[in-house]
Amino acid sequence: MITVPKMSLADAKLILDASEARAVQIGVPMDVAVVDDGGNLLAFHRMDGAKLTSIEIAINKAFTAAGTRKGTHEYAPVGGPGGPAFGIHASHQGRFTIFGGGLPIQVEGHTVGGVGCSSGSPEQDREVAQAGIDALFRSLGHPSA
Amino acid sequence: MITVPKMSLADAKLILDASEARAVQIGVPMDVAVVDDGGNLLAFHRMDGAKLTSIEIAINKAFTAAGTRKGTHEYAPVGGPGGPAFGIHASHQGRFTIFGGGLPIQVEGHTVGGVGCSSGSPEQDREVAQAGIDALFRSLGHPSA
Amino acid sequence: MITVPKMSLADAKLILDASEARAVQIGVPMDVAVVDDGGNLLAFHRMDGAKLTSIEIAINKAFTAAGTRKGTHEYAPVGGPGGPAFGIHASHQGRFTIFGGGLPIQVEGHTVGGVGCSSGSPEQDREVAQAGIDALFRSLGHPSA
Amino acid sequence: MITVPKMSLADAKLILDASEARAVQIGVPMDVAVVDDGGNLLAFHRMDGAKLTSIEIAINKAFTAAGTRKGTHEYAPVGGPGGPAFGIHASHQGRFTIFGGGLPIQVEGHTVGGVGCSSGSPEQDREVAQAGIDALFRSLGHPSA
Repeated sequence: MITVPKMSLADAKLILDASEARAVQIGVPMDVAVVDDGGNLLAFHRMDGAKLTSIEIAINKAFTAAGTRKGTHEYAPVGGPGGPAFGIHASHQGRFTIFGGGLPIQVEGHTVGGVGCSSGSPEQDREVAQAGIDALFRSLGHPSA
Repeated sequence: MITVPKMSLADAKLILDASEARAVQIGVPMDVAVVDDGGNLLAFHRMDGAKLTSIEIAINKAFTAAGTRKGTHEYAPVGGPGGPAFGIHASHQGRFTIFGGGLPIQVEGHTVGGVGCSSGSPEQDREVAQAGIDALFRSLGHPSA
Repeated sequence: MITVPKMSLADAKLILDASEARAVQIGVPMDVAVVDDGGNLLAFHRMDGAKLTSIEIAINKAFTAAGTRKGTHEYAPVGGPGGPAFGIHASHQGRFTIFGGGLPIQVEGHTVGGVGCSSGSPEQDREVAQAGIDALFRSLGHPSA
Repeated sequence: MITVPKMSLADAKLILDASEARAVQIGVPMDVAVVDDGGNLLAFHRMDGAKLTSIEIAINKAFTAAGTRKGTHEYAPVGGPGGPAFGIHASHQGRFTIFGGGLPIQVEGHTVGGVGCSSGSPEQDREVAQAGIDALFRSLGHPSA
């Protein structure tokens, strides 16, 4: 038996608040999802003006990041045409996401969850997800990832 | 073309806060979901200690209530064994929920969305959903439903 | 090789118009679907005020009626608790519908399709579906089914 | 709570009629779907001779356009091989459509729904969808999009 850190709803809300603040800054309302270490949804907010199709995409990005312990953008070259894992985007009934906007949340060497953002470009989505994780780290007194 | 009221994320957060406060009062941490008039997720919080399987159930309850414009508890006698719509619970790939805990949100004669709660008994789930809707109505200066 | 009658879009529209007129008469706006002899959607209208969840249910009823060549209400005793085909409502990913509101369209001994209605009681849904079929038969110079 | 415009079935029928007229003009019978602002089906017609597989594709195009507020053709370069969102076509169980023929319907700055057409080339499908939207705008006294 081991002991692991686990996110609370308060942690997830803190991430959502910071991601939403960044989304407002860059002028792109987003769907933002936070999942726990089991890949299961902890919290989700759809900002006014965010895309409807991005509800599921944001959740899928968070799920993929938590499950793979990688940013979803890292799978673009791996899972894209010609990549060594081409086709992986169709797994989990299409939930496995291979473009940017999903980031794992790693605390003390453990992946405690993932954040997924969607509605902007993959780069914008990733920036907004990172802002949420940065805020969590600040609250924990950790340096940014 | 007609004109209808539509919920904002602020409205959904207000509902979540009030539902969560009631869930704390009755000592049953819950999954709480708010969907819009199209049945699409607007906001979701899983309280610490809420059930994992209730993530989907809460979302489904909110979806069913928004789509049918009825409380999901109203479908228990209709869709249960011997009821006139037995079998309806299997529709929408099993998303159609026929036990309590999902309530429609009705403003000025329009169904603007639904709230779904899960983790307790159907009665507890319904009480917590109602607390969220009551808070929304108070914020709008409306009498409770 | 045999020769069979087949519905056109004009036939389907004629059914929809008559079903919608009846739905207006009884004051219950409905989702109305017409499928062809392959169970595939030919036409669908969601009347203003019809239920969102009934989109899929209306289509499923039409599909079930065309596929079984029976009214969906005939499956209530067969597929309900204690019936000889209990559980059949879960087949086709929950699309097989065992409560009223879906009727087969039978012309010259051939099942050419199905009509499915949803938003009211199973009896109301069935009445509205029948009104559509009656109108089709009148247009063909046939006596009502 | 905000106030938004919403399409009626009459609006959807007007779109279908105009799209069907254009499809007749170019000699390509089509499946035509109209969804509302929540991505939910409002009306669907399969013209005589339209493709069976295009039933679902037309509905998915309308869903994608309403949800993303973009024409589905705009996703071809973004979601195709080498594009920044490659893999997005697998989301929503494959419903997210990245080739032409789906267009959002935007009224007074709000996306009130989407039109999806299928059976021809992506360009033909898009032309037929646009003809439907143009007719809606004419009926509203708006300039074409």
